Amino acid sequence: MTISETGDLLTAQRRAFHEGLIEHEWLLPARAAMLLGLGPKSVAVYDGLVALIAITARDLFAAEVTPVRFPPIFAVGMLERTGYVASFPQLLGTINSFLGGPSEYRELIAEYDRGGDWQAMLDTTGLALVSAACHPLFAHLEGSTADAGKLYELTGECFRHEPSEDPMRLMSFRQREYVRLGTEIQAKEHRRQWLEIAQQLFAQLQLPVDVVPANDAFFGRGGAMLAANQLETEAKFEIVTEVYEGTQTAISSTNFHGDHFGRDFAIALEDGSVAQSACIGFGMERVVLALANRHGLKLDEWPAGVLTLLGIQK
Amino acid sequence: MTISETGDLLTAQRRAFHEGLIEHEWLLPARAAMLLGLGPKSVAVYDGLVALIAITARDLFAAEVTPVRFPPIFAVGMLERTGYVASFPQLLGTINSFLGGPSEYRELIAEYDRGGDWQAMLDTTGLALVSAACHPLFAHLEGSTADAGKLYELTGECFRHEPSEDPMRLMSFRQREYVRLGTEIQAKEHRRQWLEIAQQLFAQLQLPVDVVPANDAFFGRGGAMLAANQLETEAKFEIVTEVYEGTQTAISSTNFHGDHFGRDFAIALEDGSVAQSACIGFGMERVVLALANRHGLKLDEWPAGVLTLLGIQK
Repeated sequence: MTISETGDLLTAQRRAFHEGLIEHEWLLPARAAMLLGLGPKSVAVYDGLVALIAITARDLFAAEVTPVRFPPIFAVGMLERTGYVASFPQLLGTINSFLGGPSEYRELIAEYDRGGDWQAMLDTTGLALVSAACHPLFAHLEGSTADAGKLYELTGECFRHEPSEDPMRLMSFRQREYVRLGTEIQAKEHRRQWLEIAQQLFAQLQLPVDVVPANDAFFGRGGAMLAANQLETEAKFEIVTEVYEGTQTAISSTNFHGDHFGRDFAIALEDGSVAQSACIGFGMERVVLALANRHGLKLDEWPAGVLTLLGIQK
Repeated sequence: MTISETGDLLTAQRRAFHEGLIEHEWLLPARAAMLLGLGPKSVAVYDGLVALIAITARDLFAAEVTPVRFPPIFAVGMLERTGYVASFPQLLGTINSFLGGPSEYRELIAEYDRGGDWQAMLDTTGLALVSAACHPLFAHLEGSTADAGKLYELTGECFRHEPSEDPMRLMSFRQREYVRLGTEIQAKEHRRQWLEIAQQLFAQLQLPVDVVPANDAFFGRGGAMLAANQLETEAKFEIVTEVYEGTQTAISSTNFHGDHFGRDFAIALEDGSVAQSACIGFGMERVVLALANRHGLKLDEWPAGVLTLLGIQK
């Protein structure tokens, strides 16, 4: 096959998968809203996965599990401090609103009524969409002494501005994350443990996966260097599965941050050294849809063991 | 007391409550992120509430319960079609991102490096933050025939740009909603049923509440008229509780929409008439914090019956 034929095949597979997911109400189209919703089957599998991972975490780490939750928005300064503006400007989202008084309101509404560019009359709010689920946690821990005995558990809504027809690439998606801060050894051990736990979970769910070293798609200045550095230091591993024939899609990833966030947010250890950190994130919609792809679009025909594991009754 | 003394007292109460919630880790401060997170106690009560309401819904409505879920963002056109731009411009949030190529990136990064206004170099994305949890559902149902036998259940992250020191007024919050479409009688019956269910739930949770007719804080053109109309037609009821002495805070509300969304999104009934609709929304963070205010900041000292109801073990 030529490269173009491979591309055509991939596009055709994506379209067929997308159409199937909508026909069987895994995904809910909403033309006016532009974004897809999750239907009852997706919600059932999603909630089952959250519970399964939570129970696994508690079996292994008991009272260390520390559930926290942050909003889908934070200060725009967070995009600056985490290096996101320089590295991923094409993915970020900042938030504008109307900050004027009555006379500006009259102008806004006049522009709006004539179908004009009313958005040009809005102002920046100093807020942005959260880019990675664990970033607000580091903001919360700023200036504190890290407790290596805590395993943070959170679900975060993430935004990445990359419009796509591929149901495996949503602009707004949820990451279920487990984060540990501590020494380099503790952070790396967290990554090792969770790569293993995640692989066992996917095996139980009868979803074939591979683990591969990976890098983020850094943009512009120093991008190639940053990406190469991630690969060299094995900072990022992805758990991938074959949703489309011949290609691998990441459904989970582990990141060893070194002292990146510890330094940026002045988080120390008890001995005064800078805290290191690592996280694992499950791309929840991707896992749900990869399972639908693997086990079929009719949920009641899924393997009985998988349904039991997810707490779903036929 | 003079009005100013009352205001001072309210401010002092809000501050004391805020500080207590942070000291006992119900809320997680995150200075750099600007927004508050939820700590382990809040997450436990939040998840317990979601489960309690879900079980109640299934006991009463069985297979009618239809869980769906939508992202926290949607097309900016939704703010136009739901009348939000005209009615609540000061609360909305639109999303900008970097849409340029390599040369624009160089300009962006130069501006960013000199601490300049890099946000001015972003473009509109056509996306906005969801303003009310049920709006994306109407976009999904656009052009369809409504099924009055479905009770839609969803959690939606909502954004309202109203910065405040009051922990009962978050800019980003979650609404747990139940929505019914049908005839006027069916929609009003939904509202009647759920006002009763919600009051029973709060009674079980030992939280004293009142039900009051209410109106939204419409802005500008026709605002007073729209608000008066809501009150006259008893379109909106709020369930309120006393968090701060002498004032009532809404923790839940029911809305009878009439044929507003049915008309705007061309949703019909089987006989060809326009679908009417109603919803109940629980302001989840508000309910959690109102319970913390009522039963105390030490979760293990809450009434045993309330903890059991929420599935929380001491």
